[in-house]
Amino acid sequence: MSAAMRFAPAFAEPAGSPIRELFPYLQWPGMISLAGGYPSVDLLDEAGLRDAATQAFGTAGALQYGATEGVPALREALAQLCAGRGLDCEPGELLVTSGSQQALELLLRILLQPGDVVLVESPAYPAALQALRQAGARVVEVPTDAQGLQVDALRACWPTLPGRPRLLYTVPTFCNPTGASLSGERRAALVQFAVAQNLTVVEDDPYGDLRFDDAPQSTLHSIGRRLAGQDNPVIFLSSLSKTMAPSLRIGWMVAPPAVLRRAAIAKQTGDLCTSPLTQLIAAHYLASGRHAGTVARASAVYAQRMQALAGALTQAFGDRLRFSRPDGGLFLWAHWDAAVLPAAPARVFDAAVQAGVLFVPGRAFYLDDTPRTSLRLSFASSGPDLLREGVRRLAQAFETETVE
Amino acid sequence: MSAAMRFAPAFAEPAGSPIRELFPYLQWPGMISLAGGYPSVDLLDEAGLRDAATQAFGTAGALQYGATEGVPALREALAQLCAGRGLDCEPGELLVTSGSQQALELLLRILLQPGDVVLVESPAYPAALQALRQAGARVVEVPTDAQGLQVDALRACWPTLPGRPRLLYTVPTFCNPTGASLSGERRAALVQFAVAQNLTVVEDDPYGDLRFDDAPQSTLHSIGRRLAGQDNPVIFLSSLSKTMAPSLRIGWMVAPPAVLRRAAIAKQTGDLCTSPLTQLIAAHYLASGRHAGTVARASAVYAQRMQALAGALTQAFGDRLRFSRPDGGLFLWAHWDAAVLPAAPARVFDAAVQAGVLFVPGRAFYLDDTPRTSLRLSFASSGPDLLREGVRRLAQAFETETVE
Repeated sequence: MSAAMRFAPAFAEPAGSPIRELFPYLQWPGMISLAGGYPSVDLLDEAGLRDAATQAFGTAGALQYGATEGVPALREALAQLCAGRGLDCEPGELLVTSGSQQALELLLRILLQPGDVVLVESPAYPAALQALRQAGARVVEVPTDAQGLQVDALRACWPTLPGRPRLLYTVPTFCNPTGASLSGERRAALVQFAVAQNLTVVEDDPYGDLRFDDAPQSTLHSIGRRLAGQDNPVIFLSSLSKTMAPSLRIGWMVAPPAVLRRAAIAKQTGDLCTSPLTQLIAAHYLASGRHAGTVARASAVYAQRMQALAGALTQAFGDRLRFSRPDGGLFLWAHWDAAVLPAAPARVFDAAVQAGVLFVPGRAFYLDDTPRTSLRLSFASSGPDLLREGVRRLAQAFETETVE
Repeated sequence: MSAAMRFAPAFAEPAGSPIRELFPYLQWPGMISLAGGYPSVDLLDEAGLRDAATQAFGTAGALQYGATEGVPALREALAQLCAGRGLDCEPGELLVTSGSQQALELLLRILLQPGDVVLVESPAYPAALQALRQAGARVVEVPTDAQGLQVDALRACWPTLPGRPRLLYTVPTFCNPTGASLSGERRAALVQFAVAQNLTVVEDDPYGDLRFDDAPQSTLHSIGRRLAGQDNPVIFLSSLSKTMAPSLRIGWMVAPPAVLRRAAIAKQTGDLCTSPLTQLIAAHYLASGRHAGTVARASAVYAQRMQALAGALTQAFGDRLRFSRPDGGLFLWAHWDAAVLPAAPARVFDAAVQAGVLFVPGRAFYLDDTPRTSLRLSFASSGPDLLREGVRRLAQAFETETVE
C-alpha cells in the first residue's frame, strides 16, 4: 500500500449521517454526491489553520490534558462568537464539547430517563433521532413547514402527549434537512410557549453563520433570556465544524449553571476533555481575525451553489419537484409531486444511483422507515457545473422510470 | 488580560482525576505536586509532533470529518504498536477513541444495564469508579497486593457475588494507583478463570510502554487469544496520552467484532469521530519512527525519578512508610504504618499541604470515602531535586503532627 493510500481517509462523512448506508455508492467512479452533510473543504482556510496550529504548539498547555470545561481562551472566543449571533453569554456559561453532537449526547445523558417523552421537529437530523433512540426516549414528532416548526401543531398535540415532555429538539436556523428557518413570529411563540410550560428547548445551531443575506434571526436562546432571564428554557448548541473545520471536533453548549455542571461531570467520564490542541488551534484562529472573512466567503459560494442547484431543478422538473430556496446552510429539501412520481421513491433513488447521482431519501429523517416523496440535496460540496450535471442525471433517472 | 494569560490553561489535569478537588492547592505559590496523573511535558517530543502536524495538514482528510472507527493509517500504526506489546491484532479489530477514557465509557454504555454487577481491582483508577457509578453498576472491589489483583480473592468471592458479573476492570501493568504489575502466574490464572467463567475482562493498559527494564509481561489480551482464540474474554484498552501527548486525545480499544461494532455505533452518537487532525498527527508521528526513542527516553527519566523519590522516602521515613518500587508507569503507592501515624490521615494531608507538598490521599481510589493510611505519589512531573524537596516537606508535615 502506498503512503498516499495509507493516509487517505476511507471516507470522509459524518458517521452519524444517514448517508453512512450510502457509502458503497460513493465509491462508484464518477458518482456525484448531493448526499453529504459536510462543508466543502475548498472553503475552509487551510493556510490560516496551519498558522493557528503553529501558534497553538507554542502555547502553554498545547500538549497536556486540559480542563473538562474547555481551554479558557476558546471559551472566551466562543462567547464572542455567540455575541455575533445576538446571544449574550459569559465564557463560564459555555462548555466546549467534541462537536455539537457530543453536546447533544451529554444533554440527553443528564436530562433523560428511559421512557421520557421528547419532542423533535419533523423531519429531523438523523443523528439526533439516533441519540434519542439510544437514550430510550419516547420520541414525538412535531411537523414543520417552510417556516420551520409548526408551533400551532405543538400546542395542539400538547394535551395528547403520553407524558410530560422532558425537552424539545430543533434546528431553527437553516435546518438539517429542510433548510428552513423558523420565522420571527414563530420563534417568539415557541419560546413563550416553552416558558409558560416550563419546557426545555434544545436549539441546535450549527449552520446559523452560513447565511445568504444580511438579516440574521434572533436565536431562541436570546429570546428566552429576554423573556425569562435566568429561567431561560433554551439550551444553545453550536459548532465550528461547518465553518472552520470538522476535523477540529469543536462544538459547544450554552446552558444554565446546574445543567452545565452536570454536563461537565458527564464529559469527564466520557472523554476527560476535548483535545486542548485543537481547542488552541481554534482559539488562535478566532484570535487571528480571519474567521469572519472565511465564513462570509463560504456563505457567498454556498449561496451561488444553492442558486445553481435550485435553478437546475426548476428547469428540469418544473412543478414536478417542489422546494423552497433556503436562506442559508447546506441543504435544499424537495418533494416529488406524488401524482407524477413514476415509481416508488426507492426505485427513483435506485435509478438515480444508476445514473450516477446520490441524494438522501426523505425517510432517513423520520422515526419510521416509511417511503417518502421527499429528498435532501446538499449543494455544499459541488460547484455549479457539477450540480447541474447532477440534476441532469436525476432528470435522466426520473425519465427512465417514467418510460418504463 | 494579557495574551499569554488568555491562552494559558486554567489547569492541566485530567478532569476525571481525583486531584480535581485538589486544584485550589495547586495554585499555591511554590507548591510541589506529587498528585498529578499526567506525563511530564518535558519528556514529550514537541519538535517531532510539530513536524507530524505539518505533515498531517498536507494529508487528505485532515480538515474533514472522518470514519467513526478511526483514520485507517492510525489504525494500522496502532495495530503495529500493539504487536510491540505482544498483542496480535488486525487494524479492523481496533476502534480509535478520544482517549482510553472514552473506550471505557463506550464499553460500559454497550455492555452494562443499571444494576449489573461489575468487578474492579481495589484500589482502582478513580475515573473508572466514577464511570461505573454513573452507569449504575453494582461495583464489587477485588483486593490487590504488590503482585496486582489477587486472583485467589476473586475466586473466593465469586460464589458470594450479588449477581453474575458483567465484567472485571483492571490495570494489570504499572497500575494506577499502585504501580504494581500483575505477576505472570496471576495473569495466566486470571485469564483461565475468565475463560472458564465466561467473564469479560477489561484490560486498561495506558502505562505498559513506560517500563523500567527490558522484560515486558504478556498482555492479558494475548494470553486470552492463546487460550481461547476467537472467544478471547479480554478487551484491551490503551492510549497515546502517557507517551505521545495527552492533548491529542487518542486512545483505542481492541475487542471482538460484535463489541467493536456496537462501540462504534455508540461513538457515532457520542462524538461522530475522534479528531481526524490529531489522528493524522499521531499516525505521522508513529510513521516517523521517533516514537520508540521518545518512549525509551521518557522511561529512563521516569525510572531515575522513581528511584530518587523512593530513596528519599526510605531515608526520611524508614519503616514508617511502606511501599514497593514499581517497574514502570508514573506512580508509587505507599502506606503509613498505622501504629506510628501521628494523626488521622486527613490531618497529615492538611499538614503536608501547609508544608507545600501535594499527594492524592488513598481514599480517592476506593468506593467508599473511609480515611485510608495509603497515598499515591507521582514521580512523573518533577526532577530528583524537587522530588527530594517534596519528601522533605512531607517529613516536616509528619513531624509537625507527631510533635503536636
